[in-house]
Amino acid sequence: MADSQDLPVEERDDLEGLYGATDTMVRGIRAALAEGNLEAVADLVKPLHAADLADLFEQLNSEERNALVASVGADIDPEFFSYLDETVREEVIDDLDTEQLATVVQELDTDDAVDLIEDLDKEDQAELLQAIPAEDRALFEDTLRYPEESAARLMNREVATVPSYWSVGQTIDYMRSDADLPTTFYDIYVVGPSYRPIGAVPVSRLLRTDRPVPISEIMDTDLKLIPAAMDQENVAFLFRQYGLASAPVVDDPGRLVGVITVDDVVTVIEEEHEEDMLSLGGLREDDFYEAVIYTTRARFSWLLVNLATAILASMVIGLFDASIEKVVALAVLMPIVASMGGNAGTQTLTVAVRALALKELTPANAMRIVGKEILVGGINGIVFAILMGLIAWFWFDNWLIGLVLACAMIINLLMAGFAGTIVPLTLDRLKIDPAIASAVVLTTVTDVIGFLSFLGLATLVLL
Amino acid sequence: MADSQDLPVEERDDLEGLYGATDTMVRGIRAALAEGNLEAVADLVKPLHAADLADLFEQLNSEERNALVASVGADIDPEFFSYLDETVREEVIDDLDTEQLATVVQELDTDDAVDLIEDLDKEDQAELLQAIPAEDRALFEDTLRYPEESAARLMNREVATVPSYWSVGQTIDYMRSDADLPTTFYDIYVVGPSYRPIGAVPVSRLLRTDRPVPISEIMDTDLKLIPAAMDQENVAFLFRQYGLASAPVVDDPGRLVGVITVDDVVTVIEEEHEEDMLSLGGLREDDFYEAVIYTTRARFSWLLVNLATAILASMVIGLFDASIEKVVALAVLMPIVASMGGNAGTQTLTVAVRALALKELTPANAMRIVGKEILVGGINGIVFAILMGLIAWFWFDNWLIGLVLACAMIINLLMAGFAGTIVPLTLDRLKIDPAIASAVVLTTVTDVIGFLSFLGLATLVLL
Repeated sequence: MADSQDLPVEERDDLEGLYGATDTMVRGIRAALAEGNLEAVADLVKPLHAADLADLFEQLNSEERNALVASVGADIDPEFFSYLDETVREEVIDDLDTEQLATVVQELDTDDAVDLIEDLDKEDQAELLQAIPAEDRALFEDTLRYPEESAARLMNREVATVPSYWSVGQTIDYMRSDADLPTTFYDIYVVGPSYRPIGAVPVSRLLRTDRPVPISEIMDTDLKLIPAAMDQENVAFLFRQYGLASAPVVDDPGRLVGVITVDDVVTVIEEEHEEDMLSLGGLREDDFYEAVIYTTRARFSWLLVNLATAILASMVIGLFDASIEKVVALAVLMPIVASMGGNAGTQTLTVAVRALALKELTPANAMRIVGKEILVGGINGIVFAILMGLIAWFWFDNWLIGLVLACAMIINLLMAGFAGTIVPLTLDRLKIDPAIASAVVLTTVTDVIGFLSFLGLATLVLL
Repeated sequence: MADSQDLPVEERDDLEGLYGATDTMVRGIRAALAEGNLEAVADLVKPLHAADLADLFEQLNSEERNALVASVGADIDPEFFSYLDETVREEVIDDLDTEQLATVVQELDTDDAVDLIEDLDKEDQAELLQAIPAEDRALFEDTLRYPEESAARLMNREVATVPSYWSVGQTIDYMRSDADLPTTFYDIYVVGPSYRPIGAVPVSRLLRTDRPVPISEIMDTDLKLIPAAMDQENVAFLFRQYGLASAPVVDDPGRLVGVITVDDVVTVIEEEHEEDMLSLGGLREDDFYEAVIYTTRARFSWLLVNLATAILASMVIGLFDASIEKVVALAVLMPIVASMGGNAGTQTLTVAVRALALKELTPANAMRIVGKEILVGGINGIVFAILMGLIAWFWFDNWLIGLVLACAMIINLLMAGFAGTIVPLTLDRLKIDPAIASAVVLTTVTDVIGFLSFLGLATLVLL
């Protein structure tokens, strides 16, 4: 993800005074911890936002983290825990007793609390839930019954609701009196009989309307009702598509059970982004904070798949070992054809996978796009064929080698355009996530076709 | 990006009735357009959200688009234009006359309007601005003076502000009377002398407070004041970091000039995501809707860089042509070493680039992480060395080839761990975006080291 770290230094200065967990701050806290000056640590940490404290904390090693927790102790903002990286959070939570954890959980919003509870193992979860008053416990247990990554896990259970026959004035009076509302909310939901949402009023509109006006007159009625079991990726899609600030969540019979706000969706979008980046890089999850052994094991499986495809490509080369023995230039040049095919294919693939995800690439225009990509591959294939053909000709003083290389380059770049679109389209049709599986299939294709076309043509023409 | 297209079919059904631009809808509109039944088209399109209409529109070919515009015509929601893909939007805008465009621009929020104006060429821009009333024009011109991708381009110029000596009641009365406010807003800003923001009150808090309470008593004072020239990536960082719903934008003297809301930031996050994905795939921009020639040219430069690095790797192979001539198995096996190094390196690189962007990888922990990655590379190197060494031994019935391959594998995977972290760290230090440049440097390193270690060791040991 691009952010201030990628920017030239004058732009990074933009954040001066706006972001708390700076390098200077980390160094200051380290120095104070090393001196054992806990008072100085507390003074440095006190003015920090919980998100900045979490960032700082992640920078420290285990020993320093323990010392910091000891010095800040009970003063810690519960929000701190919801900002922490999951791996680091597990470490911290292990050190807390059930009672401390129960206090933290009850002070958090439902969605943040559930996010914390769901990571505990079954036993700790049961113990923690026992330590929470029955009413809150029922809410948590109810939410935990929905699958992970569902809308229910994102929602806050506290919602501002009013009946449709109220006026603006009644609504405002009720808001002023009632304590059981979320800290901040953007929309008020109007509910009908059996608590079904029938409309929504942005808070700013309520504020700007005269007291006698009935709520039903100013409410929006085209609500996007989110089923509690909906996958969070679809929730994010709806928020993005319609620019929503919040949306009501309903259970199976259609009753309002909670509300999702856009800040929760930003987190989901970040998670999706993370998944996409990682799967492109051949990883299942971010292992930055994981131990060496765990990281090694997690990366092993992808490397094993890669080994299999590499062996396949080698077997293709093995078919032509007699040709290589006679014309060793073939061994020197063959990786170029494979590499150019792989890169051109990856370009096409990247555009196609994105377009699939954004619903831009559909059955309606698939053939047009495949045609376009083959054409693009063909044109660049011809340009690079001429360029590399000439280089090979002069390098090995043999125009036939140049010609064979040029032909193989065109074939492989045409193939790259074709496979770069057909592979993700096919995987999508087969209900396999094209973001994860496309790259490995594609590079296998461009490697095999690259070696096969170059060595095969060479065997026909040169020998 | 992962969304409903990646999901199994039962999850995709989640969106039934919630998303308008479905395949069935596209087919319906196409059929009606083909029949020339413009009334049927209008009936289908009328209930659609502007965002869905934009999606549908993108699916159609030029002819169908023209027919659709003709049939919907003046009824079109101006928001439609802000949802359209840029390339497609340019096409549509070309068909509008200046007056029509001026009407659209004035009905949009400032940020969406500026987004549309900034894409026009200088001449059309000047003409359009002349067609807009002087007051609006001054606002647009002022915003356009700030650089592209700056906070100013994201902000809405209409802000709900009150002086600090007002009460809640006065504020509500003012909100009810004054028409020059944004359609929806989440925070009211409290301004001091010379219009400097000194506090913010979430609208829901205002609503819940009794009328006589002074605004200054309920306002938050730790504002994140965003300089108008701040890069949009830093703006997105602050919104994510502190979970902001809106933030005030100030000019150089510190006066409030606008407000950025979280929905604009979601768009920025999407853009960043797009940039990251595309640069990983060797692309500068999304060319899905671009013409063949433009696409071909845009991809050419990246392929040229790749060609240069591929030739470099080939030259390394060329150093050992005598060895390959004698033992052709070397040519067969050498791509495996390079490929495994490239993949292991990419895994490390992906984690490192992400961690840099999230400010998790910093000078404070860089050496620890480099050490960890070398260790991970070393362990996987040993495992794959044993595996592949045995395979090569039996394949070519030569245990020395297996041994050489095993050693080269360990060297290259150690190198992959080292280069996978050092390359992005170094680029970052040199103020070069590691997301864009790291991959090409890394694969050059793993190719060169892979070929050099395998062929070099083989030359020493086998010949």
